[in-house]
Amino acid sequence: MNIITPTIKKLLETWLNEDIGRGDLTQLALNDDIVNAYWTSKQAGIFCGGDLVKYLYQSLDTSVIITLLKSDGDTMRAGERIIELSGPIPSLLAGERTALNIAMHLSGIATATKKLVSQLEGTGILLADTRKTTPGLRPLEKYAARCGGGINHRLGLDDAAMLKENHIAWSNGIAQSIQALRKSIPWTTKIIVEAETIEQAKEAASEGADGVLLDEMAPSQLQTLVPDLRKIAKKAAKEIIIEASGIDPKQIQKYAYTGVDIISTSAPITQSTWIDLSMRFSEHLPNK
Amino acid sequence: MNIITPTIKKLLETWLNEDIGRGDLTQLALNDDIVNAYWTSKQAGIFCGGDLVKYLYQSLDTSVIITLLKSDGDTMRAGERIIELSGPIPSLLAGERTALNIAMHLSGIATATKKLVSQLEGTGILLADTRKTTPGLRPLEKYAARCGGGINHRLGLDDAAMLKENHIAWSNGIAQSIQALRKSIPWTTKIIVEAETIEQAKEAASEGADGVLLDEMAPSQLQTLVPDLRKIAKKAAKEIIIEASGIDPKQIQKYAYTGVDIISTSAPITQSTWIDLSMRFSEHLPNK
Amino acid sequence: MNIITPTIKKLLETWLNEDIGRGDLTQLALNDDIVNAYWTSKQAGIFCGGDLVKYLYQSLDTSVIITLLKSDGDTMRAGERIIELSGPIPSLLAGERTALNIAMHLSGIATATKKLVSQLEGTGILLADTRKTTPGLRPLEKYAARCGGGINHRLGLDDAAMLKENHIAWSNGIAQSIQALRKSIPWTTKIIVEAETIEQAKEAASEGADGVLLDEMAPSQLQTLVPDLRKIAKKAAKEIIIEASGIDPKQIQKYAYTGVDIISTSAPITQSTWIDLSMRFSEHLPNK
Amino acid sequence: MNIITPTIKKLLETWLNEDIGRGDLTQLALNDDIVNAYWTSKQAGIFCGGDLVKYLYQSLDTSVIITLLKSDGDTMRAGERIIELSGPIPSLLAGERTALNIAMHLSGIATATKKLVSQLEGTGILLADTRKTTPGLRPLEKYAARCGGGINHRLGLDDAAMLKENHIAWSNGIAQSIQALRKSIPWTTKIIVEAETIEQAKEAASEGADGVLLDEMAPSQLQTLVPDLRKIAKKAAKEIIIEASGIDPKQIQKYAYTGVDIISTSAPITQSTWIDLSMRFSEHLPNK
Amino acid sequence: MNIITPTIKKLLETWLNEDIGRGDLTQLALNDDIVNAYWTSKQAGIFCGGDLVKYLYQSLDTSVIITLLKSDGDTMRAGERIIELSGPIPSLLAGERTALNIAMHLSGIATATKKLVSQLEGTGILLADTRKTTPGLRPLEKYAARCGGGINHRLGLDDAAMLKENHIAWSNGIAQSIQALRKSIPWTTKIIVEAETIEQAKEAASEGADGVLLDEMAPSQLQTLVPDLRKIAKKAAKEIIIEASGIDPKQIQKYAYTGVDIISTSAPITQSTWIDLSMRFSEHLPNK
Amino acid sequence: MNIITPTIKKLLETWLNEDIGRGDLTQLALNDDIVNAYWTSKQAGIFCGGDLVKYLYQSLDTSVIITLLKSDGDTMRAGERIIELSGPIPSLLAGERTALNIAMHLSGIATATKKLVSQLEGTGILLADTRKTTPGLRPLEKYAARCGGGINHRLGLDDAAMLKENHIAWSNGIAQSIQALRKSIPWTTKIIVEAETIEQAKEAASEGADGVLLDEMAPSQLQTLVPDLRKIAKKAAKEIIIEASGIDPKQIQKYAYTGVDIISTSAPITQSTWIDLSMRFSEHLPNK
Repeated sequence: MNIITPTIKKLLETWLNEDIGRGDLTQLALNDDIVNAYWTSKQAGIFCGGDLVKYLYQSLDTSVIITLLKSDGDTMRAGERIIELSGPIPSLLAGERTALNIAMHLSGIATATKKLVSQLEGTGILLADTRKTTPGLRPLEKYAARCGGGINHRLGLDDAAMLKENHIAWSNGIAQSIQALRKSIPWTTKIIVEAETIEQAKEAASEGADGVLLDEMAPSQLQTLVPDLRKIAKKAAKEIIIEASGIDPKQIQKYAYTGVDIISTSAPITQSTWIDLSMRFSEHLPNK
Repeated sequence: MNIITPTIKKLLETWLNEDIGRGDLTQLALNDDIVNAYWTSKQAGIFCGGDLVKYLYQSLDTSVIITLLKSDGDTMRAGERIIELSGPIPSLLAGERTALNIAMHLSGIATATKKLVSQLEGTGILLADTRKTTPGLRPLEKYAARCGGGINHRLGLDDAAMLKENHIAWSNGIAQSIQALRKSIPWTTKIIVEAETIEQAKEAASEGADGVLLDEMAPSQLQTLVPDLRKIAKKAAKEIIIEASGIDPKQIQKYAYTGVDIISTSAPITQSTWIDLSMRFSEHLPNK
Repeated sequence: MNIITPTIKKLLETWLNEDIGRGDLTQLALNDDIVNAYWTSKQAGIFCGGDLVKYLYQSLDTSVIITLLKSDGDTMRAGERIIELSGPIPSLLAGERTALNIAMHLSGIATATKKLVSQLEGTGILLADTRKTTPGLRPLEKYAARCGGGINHRLGLDDAAMLKENHIAWSNGIAQSIQALRKSIPWTTKIIVEAETIEQAKEAASEGADGVLLDEMAPSQLQTLVPDLRKIAKKAAKEIIIEASGIDPKQIQKYAYTGVDIISTSAPITQSTWIDLSMRFSEHLPNK
Repeated sequence: MNIITPTIKKLLETWLNEDIGRGDLTQLALNDDIVNAYWTSKQAGIFCGGDLVKYLYQSLDTSVIITLLKSDGDTMRAGERIIELSGPIPSLLAGERTALNIAMHLSGIATATKKLVSQLEGTGILLADTRKTTPGLRPLEKYAARCGGGINHRLGLDDAAMLKENHIAWSNGIAQSIQALRKSIPWTTKIIVEAETIEQAKEAASEGADGVLLDEMAPSQLQTLVPDLRKIAKKAAKEIIIEASGIDPKQIQKYAYTGVDIISTSAPITQSTWIDLSMRFSEHLPNK
Repeated sequence: MNIITPTIKKLLETWLNEDIGRGDLTQLALNDDIVNAYWTSKQAGIFCGGDLVKYLYQSLDTSVIITLLKSDGDTMRAGERIIELSGPIPSLLAGERTALNIAMHLSGIATATKKLVSQLEGTGILLADTRKTTPGLRPLEKYAARCGGGINHRLGLDDAAMLKENHIAWSNGIAQSIQALRKSIPWTTKIIVEAETIEQAKEAASEGADGVLLDEMAPSQLQTLVPDLRKIAKKAAKEIIIEASGIDPKQIQKYAYTGVDIISTSAPITQSTWIDLSMRFSEHLPNK
Repeated sequence: MNIITPTIKKLLETWLNEDIGRGDLTQLALNDDIVNAYWTSKQAGIFCGGDLVKYLYQSLDTSVIITLLKSDGDTMRAGERIIELSGPIPSLLAGERTALNIAMHLSGIATATKKLVSQLEGTGILLADTRKTTPGLRPLEKYAARCGGGINHRLGLDDAAMLKENHIAWSNGIAQSIQALRKSIPWTTKIIVEAETIEQAKEAASEGADGVLLDEMAPSQLQTLVPDLRKIAKKAAKEIIIEASGIDPKQIQKYAYTGVDIISTSAPITQSTWIDLSMRFSEHLPNK
């Protein structure tokens, strides 16, 4: 899926503007020479943000030329070259900070996701993100999670009807809520229930929920609950997706053999740190 | 400084929209009762984001009432109540995720800043942030840094003229650049030089720079360089602000007695993780 | 679901502006008296747009008071009063055309939807809309369809992964596409296949599609295909939603006993006409 | 007049975004081949929307090439080719629905307008639209009316000062209102009076209105009133434009010999249905 | 006409933002006391901008209370109080500069307009502005011109069809252009011709132009041309508005007896200077 | 500094739209020929706005070709050619008024600035503007001031912390305010004090203000105060910038030998008038 949608284009222009403000004051001391530069990573990790950086620089100055040596999702070693650019010095410097900030942040998320995904390799369990995302960056942070090998949970409140703890508390119960939703939401949309207890999970399965989140349950609990839920769903002639959530990411391997389809965690987004990238200048081109 | 500027208002509405999208599907299963809720912290830390959460909820539904039990910058203990809210269930739930995401992210930054600031207590050295900020959130992340006891570096490329490594490389040298800038930038704006070498630092000081960044220098180097720079500046009848940058935050105390005015680091923003906050429901009010 | 989301608020302000432009020239001939007015329908039908009209007038002038005598989705008889308003004459007149245009257009859609829904009453088949909607009005036209008793199809290209005729033609086939999508789209999202042939429909069902659209098939074809698809899906331990599309709305009753879950049609949006509503003035209030 | 103004450009981007949302999920199953496609009409009618479709596709992907075989306002027969396109499959499919929706809606209006205009052929009477337009689409729906051979009424409340029924009721009478307006509106702007009675029409004419709307009057009434109004206007040394409004479009030919200059009706916009167009793929080009 | 349209509201918020930027830094030194302030004029003139100032302050802080002692268009003497305000100090100061800039600029235009209008008093000739307006401020500058007793020329290129020198040069002549326009522009819109020569003026009148601009003609020329044009128009049973343009404002009285209806000049907008207003603080209220 | 920032681009598109509105009605009478045109100045002065005009025309129609014969800041004689353009007639005419308005307004400011700057030539005193700028045009008016040889004062309330008369009145005094600000504003930001009295000026200097504005002081007062302030600052090991403000521009030469660094005045922006430029057509190119 092409990440450069109209919404993302507008976002990138806003971000550029956030840094440039009323204009880059220091440009006044610079000449207009065309130079070559490159990006390099100071750490190993998963790269993310190349297409965004390319669009950002081109919206700043169409004469900047960018070659991506790594695609989003590629592994990068410490010291490796990632991007090569050439263009007028004032343009390269005016976009530098914003471009690096985007790629450093997103590469941090892709890298943290990859680490957890690796621990689930071979188990058939997918790693999903959550709606705990930095405000304004959700589509991009979820893209970074995909680049790290993860799968996305719903993108917003409009993307699936999910009965969470508080919804259940304030509605007329799981069964009635599922029936009410079935009649009012788009038929193309799934209904998912977050269960705090075994009883809630079983009710969700027997009422035909498309998915169930088992929140903060121990591996031992899951080992008996998961097959029970599959049986209940089968009886209702439904396939049910079972997700374990609220798990300490350090304990993730203990959940690898619980039979769940998906483990969701906000950690790659809320507990990750940036990957250190930097831009360096190589050689001087004759001014155009 | 009131953080709720017109720009921030628009940002908060955009963020709410990012989560709500075409509408909160699960609302269809909820009644409209007015309920009481509160926010609590699962970790100790510095709270940040209260005014933003208040504005966000009020732009969603003016009938939501919010009482901030903690002000931005206050210390919170694990388990402590931070905010009390009451309002219609659908509104409380529609704003929940976005509001928590904002406060969790900003409190993470404020808390990380505070930890470093504490290590400099009594030294007179201020801790400053950098322009390494999450795109779209700079004014708020810098606000969080202030709430954690830090001081802000420049807010954007238009906020001070700063000659960085690459500017010096591609300009006609420090002296000539300072003179050129002095004639072209607003007189109310400072000129700052990032020095990679002792010679650059001294040239900046003798040419009347308002500040100098000493990048990746060892404490021992600084101990002789800092007094030298002060002497050079005094000779030029100028006060110079001296900042140490590019420092491993774990080594920060080694820089406490180098005589610099400011230590800058991106770590509280790029290397921090979110503080875990959650919203709980307390009691049910009679529906209005 | 509350229809007045932040996006819709902005839309209503844009629409008001479209009519007012650089200002209502005729206001210069009016006094500022507070008057009572009401809306009445010239035709029977289903009303839709009341909350929108209310928000629109309040964004124009907070002193306008509106009482909705009909809720969205209510039946209205010819001549019946629908809304009562009072406020300054210039404000009532400045918002009149835009407010009426919204409600007349949406009531037309709700009414046309209701007519088709009535023909399916008792069959258990739901009537769904399509993505053939007037550009810029999709969320509201889909809301009107719900007010008329319909159910929504997906809201946009991001709302479910749907393999349509052209996707199948240009992809590597249904089976491989479903597998590829399963790994890349949010797990909370359904995969739906539009089948032009019986073979495509069966492949979709056996590969675990969440739904299948049977396009332009005759009732007789459906009567054998639908039970076949259910058997195939059951074998794959999946529930499948079966939709008939591309149907002449005049023939809809012939599809009532084909066993499909849903009939989709764009007709209530693309083939409907506006319901005629008008605003009249009743009595004069003493000027405030 | 070039329809692609800056306002329309922004609108088209918003519309594209409405459908694409957070990204076209199904693209993940498609390859990037360049293909040829074409648009065809399933019905006879007047085509409208070609330039809009062209701009829309180019704002989505500059590599899409579009050839318009029909200009806006051209007649199209059922089955005729209208547009030829080539470009990457994901781009052609991502813009398909929005582009078709625009052209189908506008062609419906142009076609309905043309039908009424044909009935007035040879009479010298012009057919005008009204301000009953779908919110957000007024400039385009009025453009479609022009493509169908109609003429536009005022574009908004700022485009001419028009005293309607309610304005007259709440002002100080027609004469005084015209005098007040004459002094306050731009001199380049016309003053028009909507008359419910013969007396109002005559007062408007003698006070120098630039135009008069005769609302819901029978052909026989008009046959005596129209020449009277022309005489009154001539006496005042003024030309007056006389419009008949509030007419059942089925009765339009009865008004052909009443001597009015213009007949206005909202029917081509509020009572028309979409023309059915579709996009088909022809041949496969070697991928670039 | 209420000047606070949705477009103007957005404009005022943009302007406030232009000054406040990332936040008013000096607020940090202020307390939150509620104080009384007032505006006073240092010069005599016509006041303009009161409603704008009121809306601006209320969009900044709803607790600010504003009393307008002068309405827009009122005469003010040097030293007179114009506005009284009370509110929290930081809010009063944050809006001060923007609010004053608006009113000083607009009052300058209103005052300059009034001076010219006074010179035409008793002649029946109206003074009109032009499209020479500061970009972004046209609706407000034209409002200021009205407050000074002027009348507006067309508001934009879409507001009347005006054949100017260059249009005539590049079209098929005046007669053919008027006929072409008559069929394509809204019937509610006037057609106006800018004539550089007597021949052009006469052609315009005989072809039924609604108005004619006589550009840079001497009073003596006008004295014979104006009655000629009226005769030609009368023969065509048309009223024609005759405007003199391109006049040195110092010579305006020489044109008072030429029989033209309107004299247009850009001088009150392009040649005026700001009226000096200032905000002063009176007394201190107990903090709320 | 490149003036065409993302913010300015958006502004130019808004301005174009302000004039074009719902479309240029008169275009309907024009053919599409490509023609040559040029701009000429009717007055001597300093040109400003060339890059803006170039961007504006290209955002309107990419086929318009513009050659700037004068750069911003160049001197132009009466009658001199400034710009050459070629492009389709409808595009040249649609952008004409907006483009001219921008350049005429900004050239007026640049010219007025230059006149004052010339009077300070050789004195070493710089001429600064103020925050009295036309709302919405500040970055461009300040750019015009730079083109006229001036230097900019702060760009907004966020650009330096400036204690003005009212701030001092409502804060805890100059000393305490400076200390409070020092801890809370970005360290890269200057603190400036506006002094109404000699005592205030001296307090500011001794407390380490980066700059002091001496408001409405006579040349004789300044001659003794300026050296005093320099001494006080030197004692505090600070350089202080001294600015004279509130000066009648006609008296500016009397301040030339007072030793101040800067004289600030709003006159080139608030008291200037437009420079008269016009567009003329030269020759006809064969239509493309």
